[in-house]
Amino acid sequence: MDQPDLGKLFNPASIAMIGVSAEGGKWGHIILLNILKGNYQGTVYPVNPREEAILGYKCYPTVRAIPDKVDLALIVTPAQVVPSLMDECGAKGIPFVVVITSDFSETGSEGAELEREVVARARKHGIRVVGPNSMGIFCSTSNLHAQMPPLMPLQGSVSMLSQSGNLGVQILGWGEQQGVGFEKFVSSGNEGDLNCVDFLRYFGQDEDTRVILAYLEGIDPGTPLVEEAQAISRKKPIIVFKGGRTAAGGRAAASHSGALAGADRIFKGAVEQAGMLGVTTSQALLDCAKAFANYPLPKGNRVGIITRGGGWGVITADCCDENGLVVPPLSAALIQRLDEFLPPYWSRGNPVDLVATIAYDPYPECLEILADWEGVDAVLALGVGSLLPSYPFSHEVKGPPQLLEAIHRASQDFERQIQNSDNILHGIGRLVKRAGKPIIAVGLGSEASHKTNLEEFQVVSFPTPERAVHVLRQMYKYRRFLDLRAS
Amino acid sequence: MDQPDLGKLFNPASIAMIGVSAEGGKWGHIILLNILKGNYQGTVYPVNPREEAILGYKCYPTVRAIPDKVDLALIVTPAQVVPSLMDECGAKGIPFVVVITSDFSETGSEGAELEREVVARARKHGIRVVGPNSMGIFCSTSNLHAQMPPLMPLQGSVSMLSQSGNLGVQILGWGEQQGVGFEKFVSSGNEGDLNCVDFLRYFGQDEDTRVILAYLEGIDPGTPLVEEAQAISRKKPIIVFKGGRTAAGGRAAASHSGALAGADRIFKGAVEQAGMLGVTTSQALLDCAKAFANYPLPKGNRVGIITRGGGWGVITADCCDENGLVVPPLSAALIQRLDEFLPPYWSRGNPVDLVATIAYDPYPECLEILADWEGVDAVLALGVGSLLPSYPFSHEVKGPPQLLEAIHRASQDFERQIQNSDNILHGIGRLVKRAGKPIIAVGLGSEASHKTNLEEFQVVSFPTPERAVHVLRQMYKYRRFLDLRAS
Repeated sequence: MDQPDLGKLFNPASIAMIGVSAEGGKWGHIILLNILKGNYQGTVYPVNPREEAILGYKCYPTVRAIPDKVDLALIVTPAQVVPSLMDECGAKGIPFVVVITSDFSETGSEGAELEREVVARARKHGIRVVGPNSMGIFCSTSNLHAQMPPLMPLQGSVSMLSQSGNLGVQILGWGEQQGVGFEKFVSSGNEGDLNCVDFLRYFGQDEDTRVILAYLEGIDPGTPLVEEAQAISRKKPIIVFKGGRTAAGGRAAASHSGALAGADRIFKGAVEQAGMLGVTTSQALLDCAKAFANYPLPKGNRVGIITRGGGWGVITADCCDENGLVVPPLSAALIQRLDEFLPPYWSRGNPVDLVATIAYDPYPECLEILADWEGVDAVLALGVGSLLPSYPFSHEVKGPPQLLEAIHRASQDFERQIQNSDNILHGIGRLVKRAGKPIIAVGLGSEASHKTNLEEFQVVSFPTPERAVHVLRQMYKYRRFLDLRAS
Repeated sequence: MDQPDLGKLFNPASIAMIGVSAEGGKWGHIILLNILKGNYQGTVYPVNPREEAILGYKCYPTVRAIPDKVDLALIVTPAQVVPSLMDECGAKGIPFVVVITSDFSETGSEGAELEREVVARARKHGIRVVGPNSMGIFCSTSNLHAQMPPLMPLQGSVSMLSQSGNLGVQILGWGEQQGVGFEKFVSSGNEGDLNCVDFLRYFGQDEDTRVILAYLEGIDPGTPLVEEAQAISRKKPIIVFKGGRTAAGGRAAASHSGALAGADRIFKGAVEQAGMLGVTTSQALLDCAKAFANYPLPKGNRVGIITRGGGWGVITADCCDENGLVVPPLSAALIQRLDEFLPPYWSRGNPVDLVATIAYDPYPECLEILADWEGVDAVLALGVGSLLPSYPFSHEVKGPPQLLEAIHRASQDFERQIQNSDNILHGIGRLVKRAGKPIIAVGLGSEASHKTNLEEFQVVSFPTPERAVHVLRQMYKYRRFLDLRAS
């Protein structure tokens, strides 16, 4: 088949939803509900021969009866009728069909036969198919929420392809909690027709997509994944989470998606060669998305660390070292500049340990000096927004009035510390733009607080230094890939 | 010196607080405030020759002037006066002194000289010293909050020794967010007198301590860490996070605590030999604490996985395999039992994939069958409490009344799902006790929700399968250590 332009798949002017149900709790009901409450800007035509209207929208008995041109059909019927529906969609001239229906090749040879039939009929009509056994698609620019769970992902520039629908949609939901916004999402299901490479290629060309995430379980041996990915990686990063890396995972993948899990070592090599960035945890997938979508790349692997406490500096330096990042000593000129703000006994090393001072906070000045220094390509700013949860003191205390007054004053100090922390975050947001370097903040805090750091201050932050270092490592790796390609 | 009984250090009947300050924002003020608002049950005697009273409490001009026996002195004065204060404490017969004051060996040779003087005088008087350069101590059973930040850690059975005060107190604060309760904490500072092994030994004997955490940077070559740890590990787990594992981390540690970071390979060997459990991320330290403190150990390394979606099962099986855990196939008898609850096309494998069903949730029954099966030693229960954040639909939707009603009904479904999720959690809590196996829940959710899972349902849960697997691996490792020692 030709290389498809998937523009109309993600931005359809009109949708036929085949197999809608009046009954709440059925997928044919929930997906229509998602589309409608998602404020989709095109027209939806529910198709159901037994209902007059569903959710207040007129039902059409067949696709043919729809009085308008249709760009996309969603199918949520039982499996047996899908082949004949393909003929109906063909007759109507519909270019794209998403088959949500399961019970195809993932359940055995009988299902596989039915799937081949569906694809054969689609090909006859020139229809391109997502699925079957897809959990649907999402597109932020067209407000299209044609996916099974009632998600409202945040808007953003990350697009994701997932060979597991469930894993994919959970990542979308998680992104909502952690402040990672998505542009497009596709659950590619059994990939009877359109496959992972088709979607990667499209995301590679898509101007609204800045970062690509892929959860992969199996790739057909003939698929030109490496060639395509290599071309795309020159333009934008592809972050890959591969399921079925091990014998146990491979068995699970085979029974789940019917995919033959590729030998992991071969796959790993392909990932490296194509400039894709491999991650091995679900959290890392999202952490990378957040950083790549919002921050400039480092020019090299030299990291400046600023900390309010020695131990955090030590474990962060360890983690950098273990991940191929360098923590260079400070230059004499830099030390001299920092001397102006720090007490005489400061360590004069990298990590820059500010030492516990409470009367005056030298953090903003020292961070700025460190970030501007040409000796580092990235900065890890530890202890930002890391307010301890016991503040303010809400529990009952008995004692003399002087004690209660002091507790009250300490609570006010707490407010000032929040303000101070916000100022530092605001400063980091500005510094990233000015210095053109990634400055990742690390601080104890809830997912909600890290989401706020991004939304309010444009600062990428994580609760642990290890997560921040892992992200920096991937950014550096990608930068090196680009540099090698450019030279 | 003799092996000290540190009972009175953590459970003093009376405290002299030397160097209290009337000025809010100074450590001599904040620590007294922490002790008072922490509802310490003994008596605190503030010592300051220039004040009549502080926070409504009478001040004593000297330690000698205190009319009572004193079990513990806290020192927050400038460094130069600490040696003479040691003489005063000696004259008063005080057995324990915590020196919060810094500016000792961590700042250079002059400070090191002063530190030797402090320790020499303490030894002359038979005083045991914590620090100098300590961030203080905490004890839950005596309500003693003698630490620098105004923390109110949750009560629990985990005790922690930290060679970095800052890292230690952040872990306490983090524990408060994540539901991990602490019994005792000590920031051992420069370890001029009492050292990490003294504290480990005491925590090993302490009946209120079930799990020991240690953040270590440097251990004196002559210290019998391995021998002591080996004896303690037979009784309770010691989870060790080692800072200064690398060249970069080692340099940072040297400038911070003055500790000579031990060669990492040697240290790693010592950890293994002593049955200690080494972790390399700050999050893993706390995750292990949570699991070890609240769950039984697995008897072997066979893991049952239950999931609502294939992809999550695949990546969890991968992670188990990569961490030395086995994901065994199901027995024919077990499959037969599960057949009763699952649709005909279920995978009949481990992970047990429940397949997306929404009308009826077979999760509780299938989980119980899997947990009771003698073929697995532990269970990972995926997708528990993993409600997507877009629920309920709070944003504005325009449309016909039927649509708005359907959205309202879906919101009610959401309430039922919360109830259902709570029922599953409740069931897991009961199952862990009955089956005597760790059943770790995994579900998208805020730190607060995982705290609730533990506090309300006695269920250990994490937001990602990878964190759960890491914890299981450590539990299995510890079990194997115990089994080898017993045989």
